[in-house]
Amino acid sequence: MVVGTVVGNIWATRKEDDLTGLKFLVIEPEPTYAEASSRSRFIAVDRIGAGVGDQVMVTKGTSASFISTEFKLPIDAAVIGIVDSIEVERGDGRV
Amino acid sequence: MVVGTVVGNIWATRKEDDLTGLKFLVIEPEPTYAEASSRSRFIAVDRIGAGVGDQVMVTKGTSASFISTEFKLPIDAAVIGIVDSIEVERGDGRV
Amino acid sequence: MVVGTVVGNIWATRKEDDLTGLKFLVIEPEPTYAEASSRSRFIAVDRIGAGVGDQVMVTKGTSASFISTEFKLPIDAAVIGIVDSIEVERGDGRV
Amino acid sequence: MVVGTVVGNIWATRKEDDLTGLKFLVIEPEPTYAEASSRSRFIAVDRIGAGVGDQVMVTKGTSASFISTEFKLPIDAAVIGIVDSIEVERGDGRV
Amino acid sequence: MVVGTVVGNIWATRKEDDLTGLKFLVIEPEPTYAEASSRSRFIAVDRIGAGVGDQVMVTKGTSASFISTEFKLPIDAAVIGIVDSIEVERGDGRV
Repeated sequence: MVVGTVVGNIWATRKEDDLTGLKFLVIEPEPTYAEASSRSRFIAVDRIGAGVGDQVMVTKGTSASFISTEFKLPIDAAVIGIVDSIEVERGDGRV
Repeated sequence: MVVGTVVGNIWATRKEDDLTGLKFLVIEPEPTYAEASSRSRFIAVDRIGAGVGDQVMVTKGTSASFISTEFKLPIDAAVIGIVDSIEVERGDGRV
Repeated sequence: MVVGTVVGNIWATRKEDDLTGLKFLVIEPEPTYAEASSRSRFIAVDRIGAGVGDQVMVTKGTSASFISTEFKLPIDAAVIGIVDSIEVERGDGRV
Repeated sequence: MVVGTVVGNIWATRKEDDLTGLKFLVIEPEPTYAEASSRSRFIAVDRIGAGVGDQVMVTKGTSASFISTEFKLPIDAAVIGIVDSIEVERGDGRV
Repeated sequence: MVVGTVVGNIWATRKEDDLTGLKFLVIEPEPTYAEASSRSRFIAVDRIGAGVGDQVMVTKGTSASFISTEFKLPIDAAVIGIVDSIEVERGDGRV
């Protein structure tokens, strides 16, 4: 999952039927937690009530659609958690 | 999802059977909303009536095939919405 | 989907059982339609009769395996169409 | 799979229901085993007891969700093994 | 699929249950056939008997897990063929 911040909303009246009622957010990935090739904004579906300014965990790819058990949603990114805290230690591993 | 603009059409008479009748569009991702490694054009299936000049949301990857509940379409990109508006605020998060 | 040209063939006698009989092609993506990070050659399965020199549409990722309804093929790229023509207009969108 | 080291933890009280009780780790990929575009940290679910400092194998993408047979977890990365040892020889192949 | 060479082995005693008994290989992608962003080593499961020095075709992503019909393996790369030969012609297409 990537960590990012909600920076906006996007609206689309004309869309695929299964997506009616879903909220679409603009996400800005955090440089430290986003892959070099993925630092641009992207759109994610949110069902847990995230809003502008929230730091969130986002799942990308097909498994994002698993937030719905009813429909196979044609989406590729979903907010799965609002971050409380991140605690990073310097690992003593081989990195 | 990425945000892009429809810039053209592509035709292929000889194709996988399940794809007969589908419309294939050439999409140009918007720099701000596309990943650094994904700013080139790509082909997406459209079922909601998007046309050249439309600003659209596009789902990439396997979940693009979920626009069909009948077939498991062998496609990796689908237009899922025609954008009405995008509203971006500067988040007060840790970004 | 990406647009590319078939530039060769690859053979493997010893392979996963479900893949017996499938044709594997070497694909060279077209710079304009391939993502910056994906301009190198890759291998795709073909069932529609594409050959060296053909311009093709290729689906990448898990949905490539949907070209078979019998087996869940362990493949990540499949030729889905032989391109007849591409028509690109300058979009009047916000790009 | 990529090889990385566990460098921290992340907590999110408010999250998608199916994710309750799961442990989320911050992973730092090892430069030699991580793709050029994927050397930044990311978040992975762990069920096998990995902790800070452990060298781990991580599955990325939808198949990460297969660690659960009960739920279709909306996650895109999972720790699948704690590395004992890696043995690399110079291949005599065409590389 | 990407073409690469097997350069080593990796062992993990503590791992996800479904993975017991599987062989994990270190793969080095061939520059010509690997995407620019994917030229680093990665780990792939092998069931067809590939060994160090073998030139192999590797499927990446969720469809790698389709090498098993019994389990939904939480893996994202699998060796699907040992390469006999590659024949590349200069295509007369528009590339």
